[in-house]
Amino acid sequence: MQKFSIDDSALTSEYGIHIGRWEQYAAAAGLPFSAMWCQVPANSRSVLDHHPEVELAVVVGGDAVFTVNGEDTAAPAGSAILLTPGDRHVITAGDEPVRILSIYWLPDGPAATGTEPEQAAAADAR
Amino acid sequence: MQKFSIDDSALTSEYGIHIGRWEQYAAAAGLPFSAMWCQVPANSRSVLDHHPEVELAVVVGGDAVFTVNGEDTAAPAGSAILLTPGDRHVITAGDEPVRILSIYWLPDGPAATGTEPEQAAAADAR
Repeated sequence: MQKFSIDDSALTSEYGIHIGRWEQYAAAAGLPFSAMWCQVPANSRSVLDHHPEVELAVVVGGDAVFTVNGEDTAAPAGSAILLTPGDRHVITAGDEPVRILSIYWLPDGPAATGTEPEQAAAADAR
Repeated sequence: MQKFSIDDSALTSEYGIHIGRWEQYAAAAGLPFSAMWCQVPANSRSVLDHHPEVELAVVVGGDAVFTVNGEDTAAPAGSAILLTPGDRHVITAGDEPVRILSIYWLPDGPAATGTEPEQAAAADAR
């Protein structure tokens, strides 16, 4: 048994928010995905991001709004947002900080190579 | 983009608590792990469980106590508990309900066969 807590973790500033990569935990080395804590301070937002990994963002505190490809989705604690490779996303916090556990992995098949047509189109549109 | 929410999900009673398996979501079919929401009502606990899967239990609401192999660990929202195959665990909620996203998968290698010595010892001790 191992416990991981955002409160006990080293956080750095990236993407305009605070990030705690799970590489800091020796016990996380065997997981079949990468993970990081994300903390969005109250009344702020992350920078626009998109990447080739699939991402499951599990909201563990606060009320997030995910803006994905220009559309807003409310995501309070107890919800999770699954992002497709290339989805352009911003996370916004309201009057309370938002805390998220982000789990991500490269998909099998052509999408992992970065040559899949939809991804190329998304990159062109940036 | 897909959103999953414990509030919008079908829950059933299993393990003495309320469970929402992600098999109910078509969009979860491609994930490299299984997942389920767990809700422990206030002032109650799950039945003792152990299984061959690795489990990452992400606390998304309330203050859980995980009793793992007889030892208590406080796990508030914003923490995650990694359970090794065979770990005997109970989840207890205090005055507020506890909500968890449980992510689980069979480990690679000998541990998945159920013949790994530590697991056999744990089974004997049941």
